[in-house]
Amino acid sequence: MHCGPSLPFLWAMNVTVGGRPRHYRTVTFDRCANTVCLIDQRLLPHRLALVRTQDFKQTAAAIREMIVRGAPAIAATAAYGLAQGSLAFRGSDWRRFARHVETVMRTLAAARPTAVDPLNAMRQVRAAMRAGRTVAEQQALAVAAAEEFANQSVSECEAIGRHGAGLIRDGMRILTHCNAGWLACVDIGTATAPLYMAQQQGRKFHVFCDETRPRAQGASLTAWELAQQGIAHQVIADSAAGHLMQRGEIDLVLVGSDRTLGRTGEVANKIGTYTKAVLAHRHGIPFYVALPLSTFDWELASGLDIPIEERDPAEVLGAWGVVAEPGSDRPLRRPGRRVYVRVANPTSGARNPGFDITPPELVTGLITPVGIFKPTDLWRCRERLGWRG
Amino acid sequence: MHCGPSLPFLWAMNVTVGGRPRHYRTVTFDRCANTVCLIDQRLLPHRLALVRTQDFKQTAAAIREMIVRGAPAIAATAAYGLAQGSLAFRGSDWRRFARHVETVMRTLAAARPTAVDPLNAMRQVRAAMRAGRTVAEQQALAVAAAEEFANQSVSECEAIGRHGAGLIRDGMRILTHCNAGWLACVDIGTATAPLYMAQQQGRKFHVFCDETRPRAQGASLTAWELAQQGIAHQVIADSAAGHLMQRGEIDLVLVGSDRTLGRTGEVANKIGTYTKAVLAHRHGIPFYVALPLSTFDWELASGLDIPIEERDPAEVLGAWGVVAEPGSDRPLRRPGRRVYVRVANPTSGARNPGFDITPPELVTGLITPVGIFKPTDLWRCRERLGWRG
Repeated sequence: MHCGPSLPFLWAMNVTVGGRPRHYRTVTFDRCANTVCLIDQRLLPHRLALVRTQDFKQTAAAIREMIVRGAPAIAATAAYGLAQGSLAFRGSDWRRFARHVETVMRTLAAARPTAVDPLNAMRQVRAAMRAGRTVAEQQALAVAAAEEFANQSVSECEAIGRHGAGLIRDGMRILTHCNAGWLACVDIGTATAPLYMAQQQGRKFHVFCDETRPRAQGASLTAWELAQQGIAHQVIADSAAGHLMQRGEIDLVLVGSDRTLGRTGEVANKIGTYTKAVLAHRHGIPFYVALPLSTFDWELASGLDIPIEERDPAEVLGAWGVVAEPGSDRPLRRPGRRVYVRVANPTSGARNPGFDITPPELVTGLITPVGIFKPTDLWRCRERLGWRG
Repeated sequence: MHCGPSLPFLWAMNVTVGGRPRHYRTVTFDRCANTVCLIDQRLLPHRLALVRTQDFKQTAAAIREMIVRGAPAIAATAAYGLAQGSLAFRGSDWRRFARHVETVMRTLAAARPTAVDPLNAMRQVRAAMRAGRTVAEQQALAVAAAEEFANQSVSECEAIGRHGAGLIRDGMRILTHCNAGWLACVDIGTATAPLYMAQQQGRKFHVFCDETRPRAQGASLTAWELAQQGIAHQVIADSAAGHLMQRGEIDLVLVGSDRTLGRTGEVANKIGTYTKAVLAHRHGIPFYVALPLSTFDWELASGLDIPIEERDPAEVLGAWGVVAEPGSDRPLRRPGRRVYVRVANPTSGARNPGFDITPPELVTGLITPVGIFKPTDLWRCRERLGWRG
């Protein structure tokens, strides 16, 4: 943990700042200044800027405005936000402190009301605080518990990386979809963890990043992460993977998961994941899904019961980017100023399902923090996978 | 054929001009003014503008600068350009006229040197001219032959439409990829012909247009055509078709072809076509390819011998569009001014294969001007399909 104004940038993994690589996390907490430090993900990949929230209200706003995104990342942000809000309390009045903490939790939870991860993270911090007998003790426990939550989240990703790295051999060409990288987590990422771990172990490989229309998380976020890590990669149109598989140019597919049904082995993930699984199956290419345990859903009995979010048609009808010269790597205008361009016919509408469901027979294995599982084995192994009755 | 300055716009099919629908062709020739009239396809779908070329050099420039695109459309443009160039000759000197015609042909052929269709079209016009015994007779024959070539091209598309329309039933949801519409032809189009014919026959259906990254011909050109024709449609991300098929929301897939191997039944078409064929096969959805006879290749023995063009990475790394408000149908700036935006990480590169090969076992049928054929029957039926020993 770094303190004070000497570090203008705190960054996840090996980010190049002023030409030098540094290793930082996506979300950190500065105990001395009582600030939460976040990458402003709305500006990536065109501009790298750090946001330091000065109080828990600013931290809630950062979650709401998607300065930070990705379930593990917003969970850690909420945990730190609760510690930040607790620390800001002055005095020793026990009951006033308890009311204040309630307000902090409500404010942070309301920032992304449908997400369950921030709530669970804050409950974990709150439970740890109860061991303190004074306001000061509870404040110290809040900070420790938030740090522990973030560290635990990183440990899960590291474990995914350790289990998954064994799948990656020298010279492999690996296809990814969307972004399940360290930007979505506290560090390392889920689907990217095996890549980073294999790189650390000295293996060389090449990654094809599906651009992942309509929001292009693959072209913008995953490609940016891989470039920061110095991993060889190329962006491809979502339509190009089939051709590359046909020509024998893809050896492994590695994706994340938004929700995995423990009872059936079905995987809900970013739209287009199913298509890649179908293509991989046809070409006999291993298709792996990497996920933290919090992503398992032990309740639903069928993927058809998962509601598929229908998103804003504007995403499909256009694109966000920085005005540039087509052949150049350098944006023409002040970098970071993204604009929306309408690509489609102005009088046409769009369908925009955000997710799809991949059936278990297309999934070679699920890379979890506790090992790699076949989708048909999940229910049998549910206790090891965190199922609680 | 319309003459004179009273018609500022000559347009293909039922284009809405000033709120009223009109039926025109993509490429026409104005005998009185000796001009070739073309839609400026570089400005679509944001702006509708007609280009009238004043001489054959301007017509060649229009082909070179992709004001007109699509093999049948540039073939007809070259045929008209040859007639235009011939008509511009003043005098009756036989030898000087022949030399002039050679210059015209060379100029037009050089506009797209790798395309074979403009050359074949001009050879057809040139052959017809030889029956004339005076310069004036040859000039008249050139115009007649160019018109005949264009009419023949339209007849082929109409025949594709007649054969294909029978596949479309009321209430169907049809997936298309890229643009093989009337903008790429003289009129009607190839993959779109069955749609327009079925509409004329009173059937109602819904079309999903794959946006077709990276150049978005589906979102821009096909969606624009369908909007002009009043056919219900929606643009989708290329990744969304698999999900729609899974949910039973697609009944038929209809695409064009850039080259079809008569010996094997393999279909080379826009990148992503293969992926849609694999998905359709998995879901038992009929997958049809519509094509004119000029698209058959009777020489190659394997799709692996078809060179796959690797295009400019900038196409994948960004997008062209008009700066707009995301939710709005109206561009913010002067419509027609398209800009390029960089979407991907500025320091990442891309792979950009332009086409892929769909194997015959995934193709339900090929809709040709002389009927619908199974891909395995092409070689047996080669004489009906225009094979010339």
